[in-house]
Amino acid sequence: MQKFDPHASAQALVNFIQASIPLAHTMGIELGRYDGDSLVLGCPLAPNVNDKGCAFGGSLTSLMTLAGWGVVELALRQRGEDCDVYVGESTVRYLEPVWSDFQAEARLAEGADWATFFSTLSARNRARIAVRCQVPGENGKPAATLEAQFVAKRRVAAAE
Amino acid sequence: MQKFDPHASAQALVNFIQASIPLAHTMGIELGRYDGDSLVLGCPLAPNVNDKGCAFGGSLTSLMTLAGWGVVELALRQRGEDCDVYVGESTVRYLEPVWSDFQAEARLAEGADWATFFSTLSARNRARIAVRCQVPGENGKPAATLEAQFVAKRRVAAAE
Repeated sequence: MQKFDPHASAQALVNFIQASIPLAHTMGIELGRYDGDSLVLGCPLAPNVNDKGCAFGGSLTSLMTLAGWGVVELALRQRGEDCDVYVGESTVRYLEPVWSDFQAEARLAEGADWATFFSTLSARNRARIAVRCQVPGENGKPAATLEAQFVAKRRVAAAE
Repeated sequence: MQKFDPHASAQALVNFIQASIPLAHTMGIELGRYDGDSLVLGCPLAPNVNDKGCAFGGSLTSLMTLAGWGVVELALRQRGEDCDVYVGESTVRYLEPVWSDFQAEARLAEGADWATFFSTLSARNRARIAVRCQVPGENGKPAATLEAQFVAKRRVAAAE
């Protein structure tokens, strides 16, 4: 089995996102970094502005949701799991307007752990996990945050 | 003072959204209907698909957020108020995948009322109000819902 390369795997995922989600392509989503634990995606401001010239709330939420989705997708790929991953319930807080290019950083929510997620997936062919994301703002404070549940369903099991 | 024409006012707002928010233009957002109470916006599926071929969560949330924002913006315009309207905290539930063109319908949340909102705006030059939106799904059930707080700030007051 090949050694898992977090950055290459994340870059492949971003390429996949760009190719298969037209809105992500329009947003200009790029990989920031991935260390096997947290995933950072970035966007230029220009295609993501609102009527006030700052970042459109829909773009902030889309980027945070994709970063959260990416964290789950990458953990699954690392373990050779072939799943569809869906976002479930999300809570978004828009705290400050964003006036420049922006990033979203996603990682597991407090209290969530991969061991429970993967043991549930093994037992039931589906499992859910909570992820938290933030768009860093000025002075170290987040400009927006998202907490979301993601559900993974094994593809093979679903087709049986 | 001209009589307020809900449909013409909503169409002007959708034109404004299309012209000033690039992502809304890409999404192909169109006016469904507006009766002075609820606002319906629609999107074709094609520019809004995800990797699974159903509607991208970011598109569902963007459309619901814009419909909610529009309800507040139109109520302000009807009363001649010149405000910036920002989305605050939002809770989104993705309940069913959406496999076709979709709409989002927005109206005030239960317990929210315009009278309180406008009296607060008069007193403080800013006010917040809760809006609920849904993307109708099959069999009369929603495919996605959003509850969001919107904050309106008077432009003149802000510039003083």
